[in-house]
Amino acid sequence: MAGCLTGRRSTSRQVSTPPLLPRHSVEAAHPQLRRCRRAQEAGTGEDEEEGEEEGEDDDDDDISFASRLAASDLNAAYFRRWDDPAVHQSMMQDRVLTAAWREALAAAPPGALEGRTVLDVGCGLGLLSMLAAKAGAARVVAVDGSEGAVDAARRIIKANGLSDKITVVHGVLEELDELPGMSPSGFDVVMSNWMGPALLGGGMMATLAHAIKKWLRPGGVVLPDRVSLWAAGLEDRDALQEAKESWSRVAGLDMSAALSQVIKHPRRDVITRKAQLLTAPQRLAVWDLTELRPEHVLVMRRSGGRDRNEEEEEEEGEEEEQEEAVYASCPFRFTSLRDERLFGLVLFWEALWTWGGALEGEGKSPVRFTTHPLASSTHYQQIMIDMPRTVRVAADDEVSGELVLKPGSTDPRDVEMQLRVEHGGAQQPITASYRVAHLAV
Amino acid sequence: MAGCLTGRRSTSRQVSTPPLLPRHSVEAAHPQLRRCRRAQEAGTGEDEEEGEEEGEDDDDDDISFASRLAASDLNAAYFRRWDDPAVHQSMMQDRVLTAAWREALAAAPPGALEGRTVLDVGCGLGLLSMLAAKAGAARVVAVDGSEGAVDAARRIIKANGLSDKITVVHGVLEELDELPGMSPSGFDVVMSNWMGPALLGGGMMATLAHAIKKWLRPGGVVLPDRVSLWAAGLEDRDALQEAKESWSRVAGLDMSAALSQVIKHPRRDVITRKAQLLTAPQRLAVWDLTELRPEHVLVMRRSGGRDRNEEEEEEEGEEEEQEEAVYASCPFRFTSLRDERLFGLVLFWEALWTWGGALEGEGKSPVRFTTHPLASSTHYQQIMIDMPRTVRVAADDEVSGELVLKPGSTDPRDVEMQLRVEHGGAQQPITASYRVAHLAV
Repeated sequence: MAGCLTGRRSTSRQVSTPPLLPRHSVEAAHPQLRRCRRAQEAGTGEDEEEGEEEGEDDDDDDISFASRLAASDLNAAYFRRWDDPAVHQSMMQDRVLTAAWREALAAAPPGALEGRTVLDVGCGLGLLSMLAAKAGAARVVAVDGSEGAVDAARRIIKANGLSDKITVVHGVLEELDELPGMSPSGFDVVMSNWMGPALLGGGMMATLAHAIKKWLRPGGVVLPDRVSLWAAGLEDRDALQEAKESWSRVAGLDMSAALSQVIKHPRRDVITRKAQLLTAPQRLAVWDLTELRPEHVLVMRRSGGRDRNEEEEEEEGEEEEQEEAVYASCPFRFTSLRDERLFGLVLFWEALWTWGGALEGEGKSPVRFTTHPLASSTHYQQIMIDMPRTVRVAADDEVSGELVLKPGSTDPRDVEMQLRVEHGGAQQPITASYRVAHLAV
Repeated sequence: MAGCLTGRRSTSRQVSTPPLLPRHSVEAAHPQLRRCRRAQEAGTGEDEEEGEEEGEDDDDDDISFASRLAASDLNAAYFRRWDDPAVHQSMMQDRVLTAAWREALAAAPPGALEGRTVLDVGCGLGLLSMLAAKAGAARVVAVDGSEGAVDAARRIIKANGLSDKITVVHGVLEELDELPGMSPSGFDVVMSNWMGPALLGGGMMATLAHAIKKWLRPGGVVLPDRVSLWAAGLEDRDALQEAKESWSRVAGLDMSAALSQVIKHPRRDVITRKAQLLTAPQRLAVWDLTELRPEHVLVMRRSGGRDRNEEEEEEEGEEEEQEEAVYASCPFRFTSLRDERLFGLVLFWEALWTWGGALEGEGKSPVRFTTHPLASSTHYQQIMIDMPRTVRVAADDEVSGELVLKPGSTDPRDVEMQLRVEHGGAQQPITASYRVAHLAV
């Protein structure tokens, strides 16, 4: 079992084709990631056996995160939000994304999709389900928690003459014990466009993990089946200058003091000049989704006081160690490409459709979708993480640190981040905290 | 006491200056609005005496709505959302809105603001508090539930040298028993830019009502002190055609069947051609905010099955009467200006700063802000309510019906609407339901 692939080890299925992006895999041991286990239960996780995972303990396997999502008024409001087709529109009008899905479905190895059963997790208006049905799937079950989306999906699927192949189910997947005509561990394929802002925003990785564990047959395929999170050093002078000027002239008042709060909410924006990339990109974390299980979505991490924002009040002793559940804790080490000021990091991600490694077996490349700043632009754009102060770096200088990503403390579908950046032995490290709202995509 | 001014009666302080908009005041008796009372308690409301209202029953006065807002994870997420200064930016960059506020503060009658105490309800980044302080207020207490907004407001106010006049308080106003240096019923002025999408979106009218009841001194001034909701008949051909074309070409599939779901979520957009206004505007409801009390924010309304969307399943007997708490239940009667298809209604609103009627007393006009389609455009834009089918109308034809506005069933900060439109005796009335998300502004 590949386990908790948060930048700590190589994956069980290495993609052998040359990637679009450099693959600085982060292999370094990382003591703060104590071990991969259920967030609210000790003694499980890495040591858990495969058989136990695939067994009948479905009812308690996702207590850690999915239940936090479900046991909340927020969850009802989250699904309500998707009632409005306009909210789906930016995704469906993202031609880079839909082209990747169409290419991925068309690239299915013989027998992998033709005549197979497919579960579409968070189907929205049913676009992916229809693409899968048209690409040869025998039967698609499409599930979504939004009543309005499901209502629209049924009309759309009927209008496209695909009602005989696609069954749309309204419900929160974690709460569904039965799906029409299907048994647990019965689907050949689980597919989902679950990826959100900063990849993890929206919290749907937990739902995908549940779907895989409960509904995918042994040896089944997850689409996409590999995602990775990337960062590069960022020069962000123009945008910050523009923000400062904009905030300095509001109804005759200078409100530029808002900037310290502005940067705590990373901007979703696009890199406009290649020179804004101050370093080569580095992969922060990779997830082999075929092996993803609910107990791997969050990992326990020891944290001291040093990752807190310097300006925040310390409510507990600074050196006291605490444990917290995080998505990933990612050490990084960048080398500056030139003399410049480092403003922070630009965050992006990549998804691969390898069909369980079968494409490489045929000598083909996996289908790839990336939000890389220099690739075709997508509706996800990039996430700009600006530090509270800039750092002057010379060419070939090393900048190291850590980025921790975790569910939002108020709304677990948000992503909160803690950044620590070190440069030069004498200086104090820069630390800051951030929140990416899940509403952004 | 002016009571529940939801289109049922004239107001206690009529504005005598010529309004920008026609003032078709809706005086008709409206049997479905049974009476104005607390939403969850019988026997109060219209018959309640002034003394009782201003008395010491603060703790239970807003049980109906404010407590529904507060007793929810949604509330924490709502305030979290305002941590991000970017969310405030569209409001602060709305020059029509900020100009109205500056003009309103500058227009204060002698002694009404100079040297006075002001409570800013939902202060955000403190813009209005600073404008009030610069306009002469002796002391401003600015309250907001967003920790991030309050943090930024304090920095901004300090940078502008106004910390001696403005005190920023972090908290949910309904939960605050004390404000620094102030006593209940002690403020000379309560001001708030509480207005949201479709006026009522965001649910802040309930918070304003609480603030007025608990903190405003007898005879104090509310800014703005009069708001009204307006509608006109809408020709919306181009936008619907554009939506249909856009949805008919998604990744090679025709998804235009989504349109029936699309129109349930009224578009925030601008009227681009005057001819889209198919009728003169009509005022649907007016609120005299000086008289607003928590028990008036929602009123009980008898509803039968006929206001439900025709396509929705009837879970209860169609003729069974139910009671529901609504913001306003607004009968309307429009006269078509020409031969055309009626697509629905365009909704907009107006706010007046009358300084408690003092401006008229001085022979001056109240300061006015409007989202009227033919006035200067604002970040609120207009709300387009499209019907499930269009109606052909001839010039001078009458179209009548009712628009009911109420808090969202999932998130009470949303606004849900029920529309009934009648035209011609023989035809079935058109009924439809809508939801405006509070996230829109």
